Order: sequence, then structure tokens, then C-alpha cells
Amino acid sequence: MKIAVLPGDGIGPEIIEQAVRVLQSLDEQFELETAPVGGAGYEAHGHPLPDGTLKLAQEADAVLFGAVGDWKYDTLDRPLRPEQAILGLRKNLKLFANLRPAILYPELAGASTLKPEVVSGLDILIIRELTGDIYFGQPRGVRIAVDGPFKGEREGFDTMRYAEPEIRRIAHVGFQAAQKRGKRLTSVDKANVLETFQFWKDIVTDVHKEYPDVALDHMYVDNAAMQLVRAPKKFDVIVTGNMFGDILSDAAAMLTGSIGMLPSASLDAANKGLYEPSHGSAPDIAGKGVANPLATILSAAMMLRYSLDRAEQADRIEAAVKKVLASGLRTPDIYEEGTTRVGTREMGDAVVKALA
Amino acid sequence: MKIAVLPGDGIGPEIIEQAVRVLQSLDEQFELETAPVGGAGYEAHGHPLPDGTLKLAQEADAVLFGAVGDWKYDTLDRPLRPEQAILGLRKNLKLFANLRPAILYPELAGASTLKPEVVSGLDILIIRELTGDIYFGQPRGVRIAVDGPFKGEREGFDTMRYAEPEIRRIAHVGFQAAQKRGKRLTSVDKANVLETFQFWKDIVTDVHKEYPDVALDHMYVDNAAMQLVRAPKKFDVIVTGNMFGDILSDAAAMLTGSIGMLPSASLDAANKGLYEPSHGSAPDIAGKGVANPLATILSAAMMLRYSLDRAEQADRIEAAVKKVLASGLRTPDIYEEGTTRVGTREMGDAVVKALA
Ligand SMILES: CC(C)[C@H](C(=O)O)[C@@H](O)C(=O)O
Ligand SMILES: CC(C)[C@H](C(=O)O)[C@@H](O)C(=O)O
Repeated sequence: MKIAVLPGDGIGPEIIEQAVRVLQSLDEQFELETAPVGGAGYEAHGHPLPDGTLKLAQEADAVLFGAVGDWKYDTLDRPLRPEQAILGLRKNLKLFANLRPAILYPELAGASTLKPEVVSGLDILIIRELTGDIYFGQPRGVRIAVDGPFKGEREGFDTMRYAEPEIRRIAHVGFQAAQKRGKRLTSVDKANVLETFQFWKDIVTDVHKEYPDVALDHMYVDNAAMQLVRAPKKFDVIVTGNMFGDILSDAAAMLTGSIGMLPSASLDAANKGLYEPSHGSAPDIAGKGVANPLATILSAAMMLRYSLDRAEQADRIEAAVKKVLASGLRTPDIYEEGTTRVGTREMGDAVVKALA
Repeated sequence: MKIAVLPGDGIGPEIIEQAVRVLQSLDEQFELETAPVGGAGYEAHGHPLPDGTLKLAQEADAVLFGAVGDWKYDTLDRPLRPEQAILGLRKNLKLFANLRPAILYPELAGASTLKPEVVSGLDILIIRELTGDIYFGQPRGVRIAVDGPFKGEREGFDTMRYAEPEIRRIAHVGFQAAQKRGKRLTSVDKANVLETFQFWKDIVTDVHKEYPDVALDHMYVDNAAMQLVRAPKKFDVIVTGNMFGDILSDAAAMLTGSIGMLPSASLDAANKGLYEPSHGSAPDIAGKGVANPLATILSAAMMLRYSLDRAEQADRIEAAVKKVLASGLRTPDIYEEGTTRVGTREMGDAVVKALA
């Protein structure tokens, strides 16, 4: 089993280091190979997703990804900016299913900006389609409008599109995930305005016939954004498109107040995947040894579960993280009075120790 | 001065009735003419936006709108569904600037699902572009894909587009609103992925040169959704496109926990406008006399201020609403122990009395 390790930028290298230590402390050893990505890819090879990095990711059984991005690359042309690496990996590896759990650990309930009764015990799963929608739809660009009320003017434009098989396969992922959980799936669309999402709704409704044991409901995206704030615990599994999923999964993560704890998986049709923390590269705290490595460590656990078929090892890591939290150790992002403040490496140490 | 009154469906007629009573209790009398819209338009004339209703709205100096929509119209063809009325009014009246204040009244701080310290004193203004973007962009529909990875398959598609003058005019609205408030404007985009919103960002940056007294910052929409949950009070004015604004303005409204209190204005280039509560038609409670009429009454106040040049009357209504809240009256949606529960009509009575 070979794992491509792509640390990236900002706090990426620090948090990846701890996840790698956790993997190396398991009985079974995996082949780990590291390559630069994002700003680091640009520095090393002039491109955010260097050929060698893409090749490594393609050959590996799974990818463990840190984070990419830094203000200093903001002035680069769009195709050279760090985030193009993540879009390129998703597209090239056909990682169409993004799984973003939003879980509130009981010990961290205080970290949320929401009232404890609204979020305590929160455990929802957002499934975001990741290779279609307006993210990749052609045509797109800047042109002179040839029709419409602003004919003759410069305009920016993009194309939202979803094909039937694309919707079907992500709907299956949604229904199957719901079957393993609370058996409720909410499909989020904007069918009252968008042709793409009326089509989405129709296809999801059709796929539902194969999953009579799952309760399906449809919700408009604006309402979903409201319900996430009003009563997030009413959701079980949410399935939605790339653009809406980008917004809703981040909002849901922030409800917990502890985004530094949340892993994510991006899977292809054969369950090969890329695993990364839900948070970003946080260049402001990079190199200070204060970043929370737990989201990355939990991403490694997801990798063991989904791509490497090592559910037992995943369980062990998740249990170790819970134990460390219960012991009161906290990185600054989740620190509260009465707990013990530790740095990135000490947190990694603690998980390794709890695993032993 | 002539006002088109469009009650619509669900709780629309009840809440509009109270706003009309408030207007009629002012010294100055306005000409009020009522017409059916939404499901009511469909029932009366076979169309959600009957010709006579559109004509009335076009001739009037302002439009006071209740709410549209009911489950029973869900099976109608899309062009006949209630919400098409609101899209048609926006487009035909060229109401490109949607102003959505999210204000938390101190008396209602407990209604929020967020912790009091996070939301108390919240006062942000979201300005949503309302006649462009993927809402109206052509082409759109369902077709057989002629290119891309799903060539030959059925696909739904829509076009996102923003022309330079469209972005300029909404940016001006944003900067001017910020000048009258805290002098900070956040432009929300997704420039890292969408051509439309890289173009948006460039144009907003250019318009900024005319407003050196306003501090402008740019934020990605996913981050904006997070920051609204994390620290909403850090925002002053937000300006964004139609689609992102739909999602963010509803999320922001829900932060207050009292969406039944929030008015909105949709303005054209000459400040003619349509005024409506931020909440929907709530068919589940229609006809029960329990709906909160305050958002509609406050929408009437916004109408007096923005379209009818009667700022003093607007101030009076807003003061009356505050007085009623301070006196402890609450409709069920904002009821808390220790306050007095009242119905729609009693709440209207109280505002009329407070005005006298
Ligand atoms: C960096 C950006 C392109 C990316 C996205 O929009 O998908 C990010 O926000 C994410 O959610 O992984
Ligand atoms: C009803 C619907 C078309 C509308 C929109 O999406 O604009 C509504 O959600 C709103 O925000 O006024």
C-alpha cells in the first residue's frame, strides 16, 4: 500500500508531519512518498501541481494532503495559484465524492458560537459532488456580451452543468451513506430557479426508488443555509452539488466551532481517495508550532477506513484522538479555561502515546 | 403617491393587512391599490404575475409585497409557480439592488440560536444583486451534452454571467450604503474558481477608487458563510451577486433568530422599489392569525424611506415597533417566557396605537 503525502503550504507541513508519525506508529507500515504541491509545487517546479506530484498521486493507493495557499501567491496568474493544485487533483483523479463530516466532540461544545443545546451531539455528514457543476463547466471566461440587456459590454461568464450519470453516482453515494447512518438524506438544490438543479432533483428522486429504506427530502439551498443555523441536528446526510456544497460544508464545519478537528475525504468510483483537513493553510500561524494536527490525523483515519480497507486501524486512531481530548490537551484553536494548552508536536505525541 | 399592494399567498394577506393599517394610520394618506400575485394570481387569472398586477406595479411609485408560495402549487409547470411572480417583478421593474438588513433587536437576543455575545447588537446590511447572475443568464435548459466527459448524456445547464455595468452599479450601491454606516464594505466572490467573480472582483476594486473613505475587503463565499457563523458582528456592509446573496442573506437573517422581524427592499436605479418581509409565505400557519406582521410593517417603513422620500414617517414607524417590543408583546415566533403572547392583529393594533 502506497500513500502519496502532499504537505503543501502554510501549516500543511507541520500538521502532515504529525499525521505521518501517527501512521508510522501503527503495526503495519505503509510506503509513504512525499511531493510538493500548491505554493510549494510552484517554488520547486514552477507549477502548483507538478507532473511528478500528479503522477505520484495517480500511482498511489491514497493521497494524504495538508493544505495549500498563501497570500504571497495572490498575484500569480490564476493557473499558477496554489488552489489550482487541489482542483487539478480532483479532476485528474476523478474524485467526485467529497465527504465532510461535521461532528461536535462533547468536550469541545463550548468552542461553538451556537448555544450548547443547538449543537451538542451534532453529527451530520455533507456529501458534496466535487468534479462537476460550475467549477469545471465549459464555456467560461470574459467576453463581449452578444445578447441580453448588456449586449456589447464586457462580461464574465461561467457554465453550470450536471449530466445524468454524474448526478446518479453522487446520489448513490448519498443514499448508501444514509443507509449506514440515520437513514435520512436531504438533497439540497435550487430547483425553483436553476434548470441544472431541477434536473438534479428529478434524478435524485429517481435514484431514491432503489433505496426505499432511506427517507429523502429536498431543500432549497437558501433554506438549507438557514436550517443549518436554526436546527442543524435535524439533518443526517446532506447531498448537494459542488458550489452549494462548498458553501454549506464550510458553514456546517463552523457550527462546531472546532474546524481544526474536522477531516474530509474525496473519493473516486473505486474508493481511492484524497484525504485532507477541512481547514485551510492558515499562513498567519504557519511555522509557529501551534496548529491543530487532529483534523489531519483524523483524515489519515478516514483514509485507512475508506481507501485502505483498514477500518480497525481507523477505529484505533479515532479512539486515541478521543482519549487525548478527554485528557484535556488542547491546541490554541480549541483551548478553554481549565484545559491544558499544547502545541502541534505535543498533540501529535499524545495521539501516538494513546495509540500505544 | 400610489402604492401597489400585493398580498400573495399563505400568511401574505394577514401580514399585509396590518402593514396597510399602519400606513392608513399616518397623517398623510397614500393611494393603495391591491392586486393578486403568486398562487393568488394563478387562481384569479391563470398566471402568478397577471398582466394587470404587473401593470399596477409598473405604474405605482412603490410596491408592498407580502409573500408567495404554497405546497399546493408544487406540481404546476415551473413558469406557473408562485415564485415566478417575484422573479418576473424583479426583472420587469429592473430591481437590481436588494437590501437585506440583519438586525438583532436587544429584546430578542434570546431568540437566536447563537450565543448572546456573538450576536447581541448585530447590525449588518447585505446588498444582493437581484437581476443578473445565474438567475437570469441565458442559455439554460436540459439538453444532450455535446462536449465534456459526459458527451452524449442528458444534462441540465445554466449560465452565470455578469456584465461590467451591472457590477458597477451594484458596487456603487454597496459603497454608498457603507458611507452612511460603518464605512466598511466586504465584497463576496468566488474569484479563485469562477471567471464571473474574478471579473466581479476586478470591477469592484476599480469602483473603490471613487470611494477612498470606505475600507473594501474581498472574501470568498465559503469563507463568508463561515465568518457569518463565527463572528457576524465583524461585518458592516456585504455586497455580492444574486446566487451567493440568496444564500448568505438568509443565513444572516437566521442568525438573529427572529426572521419575522426583518424587512427588505429591492430597488431600481431611480429608487423605486418593492418591499417585502425576509421570511416566506409559511402556508403551515396561514389563516391562524399567529404570523408576525412586524417584518412587513418595517418593510413599509423602508418603503417610506427609500421610495417615497418620507424618512420622518419611516422613523416614526420604526420607533413604534421598538416601543411595542419594549412593552413585551410577542407573536409566537419570537415568544419567550415573561413576555406577552399576541396574534397578528393585536400586534398590528399595538403598532398603530404606538404611532398615535
Ligand atoms: C480552494 C478552493 C478552490 C476550494 C473549493 O472551492 O473547492 C476550497 O474552498 C475547498 O472547499 O476545498
Ligand atoms: C423564491 C425564490 C425564487 C427567491 C430567490 O431565490 O431569489 C427567494 O429565495 C428570495 O430570496 O427572494
